[in-house]
Amino acid sequence: MIIVLRPDATQEQVDHIIEKVQKLGLTPHLSKGTERTIIGVIGPEDILRVTPLEVFAGVEKVLPVLSPYKLVSREFKSQDSVIDLGRNAKIGGNKIVVMAGPCAVENVDTLREIAQQVKDAGAAVLRGGAFKPRSSPYSFQGLGEEGLKYLNKIGDEFNLVTVSEVMDPRDVGLVAEYADVLQIGARNMQNFNLLKEVGNTKKPVLLKRGLSSTIKEWLMSAEYILSGGNFNVILCERGIRTFEDFTRNTLDISAVAAVKQLSHLPVVIDPSHAAGKWGLVPSLSKAAVAAGADGLIIEVHSHPEDALSDGAQSLLPSTFAHLMKELNILAKAVGRTL
Amino acid sequence: MIIVLRPDATQEQVDHIIEKVQKLGLTPHLSKGTERTIIGVIGPEDILRVTPLEVFAGVEKVLPVLSPYKLVSREFKSQDSVIDLGRNAKIGGNKIVVMAGPCAVENVDTLREIAQQVKDAGAAVLRGGAFKPRSSPYSFQGLGEEGLKYLNKIGDEFNLVTVSEVMDPRDVGLVAEYADVLQIGARNMQNFNLLKEVGNTKKPVLLKRGLSSTIKEWLMSAEYILSGGNFNVILCERGIRTFEDFTRNTLDISAVAAVKQLSHLPVVIDPSHAAGKWGLVPSLSKAAVAAGADGLIIEVHSHPEDALSDGAQSLLPSTFAHLMKELNILAKAVGRTL
Amino acid sequence: MIIVLRPDATQEQVDHIIEKVQKLGLTPHLSKGTERTIIGVIGPEDILRVTPLEVFAGVEKVLPVLSPYKLVSREFKSQDSVIDLGRNAKIGGNKIVVMAGPCAVENVDTLREIAQQVKDAGAAVLRGGAFKPRSSPYSFQGLGEEGLKYLNKIGDEFNLVTVSEVMDPRDVGLVAEYADVLQIGARNMQNFNLLKEVGNTKKPVLLKRGLSSTIKEWLMSAEYILSGGNFNVILCERGIRTFEDFTRNTLDISAVAAVKQLSHLPVVIDPSHAAGKWGLVPSLSKAAVAAGADGLIIEVHSHPEDALSDGAQSLLPSTFAHLMKELNILAKAVGRTL
Amino acid sequence: MIIVLRPDATQEQVDHIIEKVQKLGLTPHLSKGTERTIIGVIGPEDILRVTPLEVFAGVEKVLPVLSPYKLVSREFKSQDSVIDLGRNAKIGGNKIVVMAGPCAVENVDTLREIAQQVKDAGAAVLRGGAFKPRSSPYSFQGLGEEGLKYLNKIGDEFNLVTVSEVMDPRDVGLVAEYADVLQIGARNMQNFNLLKEVGNTKKPVLLKRGLSSTIKEWLMSAEYILSGGNFNVILCERGIRTFEDFTRNTLDISAVAAVKQLSHLPVVIDPSHAAGKWGLVPSLSKAAVAAGADGLIIEVHSHPEDALSDGAQSLLPSTFAHLMKELNILAKAVGRTL
Repeated sequence: MIIVLRPDATQEQVDHIIEKVQKLGLTPHLSKGTERTIIGVIGPEDILRVTPLEVFAGVEKVLPVLSPYKLVSREFKSQDSVIDLGRNAKIGGNKIVVMAGPCAVENVDTLREIAQQVKDAGAAVLRGGAFKPRSSPYSFQGLGEEGLKYLNKIGDEFNLVTVSEVMDPRDVGLVAEYADVLQIGARNMQNFNLLKEVGNTKKPVLLKRGLSSTIKEWLMSAEYILSGGNFNVILCERGIRTFEDFTRNTLDISAVAAVKQLSHLPVVIDPSHAAGKWGLVPSLSKAAVAAGADGLIIEVHSHPEDALSDGAQSLLPSTFAHLMKELNILAKAVGRTL
Repeated sequence: MIIVLRPDATQEQVDHIIEKVQKLGLTPHLSKGTERTIIGVIGPEDILRVTPLEVFAGVEKVLPVLSPYKLVSREFKSQDSVIDLGRNAKIGGNKIVVMAGPCAVENVDTLREIAQQVKDAGAAVLRGGAFKPRSSPYSFQGLGEEGLKYLNKIGDEFNLVTVSEVMDPRDVGLVAEYADVLQIGARNMQNFNLLKEVGNTKKPVLLKRGLSSTIKEWLMSAEYILSGGNFNVILCERGIRTFEDFTRNTLDISAVAAVKQLSHLPVVIDPSHAAGKWGLVPSLSKAAVAAGADGLIIEVHSHPEDALSDGAQSLLPSTFAHLMKELNILAKAVGRTL
Repeated sequence: MIIVLRPDATQEQVDHIIEKVQKLGLTPHLSKGTERTIIGVIGPEDILRVTPLEVFAGVEKVLPVLSPYKLVSREFKSQDSVIDLGRNAKIGGNKIVVMAGPCAVENVDTLREIAQQVKDAGAAVLRGGAFKPRSSPYSFQGLGEEGLKYLNKIGDEFNLVTVSEVMDPRDVGLVAEYADVLQIGARNMQNFNLLKEVGNTKKPVLLKRGLSSTIKEWLMSAEYILSGGNFNVILCERGIRTFEDFTRNTLDISAVAAVKQLSHLPVVIDPSHAAGKWGLVPSLSKAAVAAGADGLIIEVHSHPEDALSDGAQSLLPSTFAHLMKELNILAKAVGRTL
Repeated sequence: MIIVLRPDATQEQVDHIIEKVQKLGLTPHLSKGTERTIIGVIGPEDILRVTPLEVFAGVEKVLPVLSPYKLVSREFKSQDSVIDLGRNAKIGGNKIVVMAGPCAVENVDTLREIAQQVKDAGAAVLRGGAFKPRSSPYSFQGLGEEGLKYLNKIGDEFNLVTVSEVMDPRDVGLVAEYADVLQIGARNMQNFNLLKEVGNTKKPVLLKRGLSSTIKEWLMSAEYILSGGNFNVILCERGIRTFEDFTRNTLDISAVAAVKQLSHLPVVIDPSHAAGKWGLVPSLSKAAVAAGADGLIIEVHSHPEDALSDGAQSLLPSTFAHLMKELNILAKAVGRTL
């Protein structure tokens, strides 16, 4: 931590800051420049992070030197984490994992139909929401436990890993019973009690980035889960909110390379929620594979006209199958498999 | 709802859309322009909102005519809602309500000291968090029930209304037992299960706007609470996330007038979280009163250097008292009282 | 400037950086912490700012200590700058200056009508564009020199200071001939050649903040003008671009207090372009006065239904006159005059 | 254009709007819904776009049906535009064009060295700025005409197409004399007089997207150039401004597919300015090729430690050469050549 002093800081103010730093068990290191005096503070930065040094008289600004996360960082673990999803699927290694399926589980027959089609096209994971976070109280809220049962049943039928969202700390046990991977939605990325609950399980967690969250905050949310003892976290970039309104969100494709630099955790791209328009999904999916993503999560629906949510961004199974062929070639071109 | 067709839409596609609209019990209304054909759809827009018309072949775009919220709208209720907070305090009327206190309840003595000072300066509501949403798992997470007990005790001692954040649907009952007003934090604005839980109580709810939420989404979140039967919702603007980094967030002061146009609910400004720097708080507080806000929620701490969270944005009690005098004059200048 | 080294930086890399710093005539100051080594660099930071230290092997990040602007800073000049606009009007002192008028000069009669009305209501400055930056090549582009002549004529008739936008370095002389204050529009805030040209005049410059510019960049653009020898710069906040779409832009009201902390230059608020809706203009204008702005620039049109640009955000003269009365009371409440 | 009326609109207000629409030579089409009455307006939308219908009493909102651009649209020209850059290079067809070189032309020897290296690696276009838009007046501003001469000379030596930025309408002729392609920088995307000047030439123009410009506005700026008679416009996405601060900007990779849907113009990605960090450039470049971009513009410097601008985001020639090999394989995988 570096404390930059105001040019008019008095000796008394400087002494008071130094005294505070020493009281915290840290070592201050004064350095007088031509225009500013700075105090470098040596010792664990966490202690200072919770001390509001900006409020001390004479302080102009405080510059942190270290990042606030630990367990998720590359520094903590230099090798890529490979996470076992069950049913012989692993994510974070050479093989790119494709997750596909409807936004919401609507009924068992439609789910079976879609599952068959995404399985045939090469998907390893079946997605489907039973609890749906909807911005309107009047929209379809999901089938709840019934939906989870369908997902579980169809996952078994086709030997597909299943992923489903959990929105409420009270439902973690329930969702964990039926689904192989727990999804934390973008709107819950900083639902800290929910993060703590999934941190108490050993289930793989797909942690979506919040609509307005920085990469640092996203990693901090992952840190919540790891610090609870669950290291099976998969990061998922799904678009951030910007002023651009042609797309529903703006896919931050640079998050792939950024996360790979900063962390050992696998990273997945959700092109469907990012674009909000199915016509853009193939281009974004290809970009994701080329950028180095470890996986994709794509909305596929056999009857998008009748989908109870997010029909506009769902691919038809035939479009998805065609895309998978293209992604296969691309994966090879970047030295990976699909 | 208006459906704009692509210039190359075929008759077959148009017929298919019209058929779908009719099947939903609505009346389509075809209108051929010089460059585009549009279909106006007459009937309850909600039915269409959940039907993904964008995916129908031949559709270029879909334009909603109505806003998606009802109960919170000015159209539903033209008069300003005045909400009873208890202890003779009301919000939404002529009197501007000031809420003040520490970010977090830290111990009973500091809380008492601060309560005394903000009461003396004219605040009607004492704020203090017992459950703290912190981006780092290693930061102070609040005292929990113990903090609520202190808040309750001090509220009684000084006859101050109390407001405290609830983060978890499981804690709604607990917080409601001790605090007069339930706060939903910015990060939980779209925690829909939490909204449903507070909608089941009759307690006043202070609903903070999410960091990247539009005013429309904010009103939709309020709609969740009202549709659950609890009409005692107070909206709180606390800054949105932008590219500007001098301030912690960007206070959207236009939200005051916007909310007043769109809704009957009272609106409060939180200058402390918006700015993130105590030095900007007086200017923003005055702007809020002049803009027409119904209240303010300001962080005040008697020892900001020792605050366990948000010290940098807390006012000293003396600065707060001085600000209250200025706000008093301003309130009169806009025909209100403080 | 502080250089934070990577934990795996080699001695050779450190030596190479230190050598580079010394070659630039600066003094490096090595400080080994528990987790990171940092190099504090003593001497003029400007030299380092243009040296890409981030690319040196072993460097994790570089933290600047000083702000990049000088002449515009409070540190350079602690007293508020008061700028003479001519016709006995000054901005930056106790009196708040209101600028009003149509978006564009359309014809001399309408301009005269509006000038009369805003003068009667208390405005000191008449605004009116002759060169209009329009996002569409098919929109009205302004009357050019003819418009400037009308503005000049009407300014003289009513003894009103005039302000008009200059968009092209080639037009600076022309606009300076007819208008009292040169306006640099938001889209030209970083049109550096234009800034240099107005920096070569002695005319007061109203420098609008760019739609996506930070306060720091805005001050840097002002620095361009001051460094050219023209210290008569008035900053104008007119809304920044965010995800919110109810308003045209988001007025950053905290910019008022921020600029007052960082700079000695006067700051003006443009509520019309910020909101894009006339109904929100009164609330934002009042907020601006209360926040401490030195002036307002408001669009007023006597026939908004026929305005050639920005009709939707223009106040009727009667609404403007009513607002001015309210602002008068507010100005007194904050110890100023209007 | 669709006019949505307020629920409380009076008959008189409706009549007034209809009269206005008819006076403009358009046909109004009234449609009464259950909750709102709307007026569809038939005829050229441009006429209405400049009429501020929002200000008419009784109007709730106005919904445009058509996009405001014409010449740049897919509707106007369904086939991809292929633009001749000279020296046998074309952009917009099957072959992906790579532009590379230093941010600024610094001296002839360094430029020659870099040109040799990027040519060997497979680049077809040499980039190099002679006029540099710098946010600080104290930073290196470019060599001006001298830099253009060097660029021209080296372009000839290596038979490389050259691209260089023009910042000032007065310099269009000068830059056009020396460079093959005129670049309009992000900060000048809405410098409309500059757009008009380059629209008067026949030179290919590389039009960078503004930091906070929507895709629609970007296309409107291109429309300025096309409407001036110059159809040789290449769009360049270089990152937009968001709250994320790990990267300098956020590359909007979805702009590639969006532009391909909306327009016939070629689109190029600038990963260097988007990321601001050379370490992310390879990932973003690969994403761009996979997403369907027609070209890339990449900063390469042989001595980034000594670069006078943007060193931190420049690739070393060896890294660039390695990347080009990877891009070659990727291009084939998506059915294109490099």
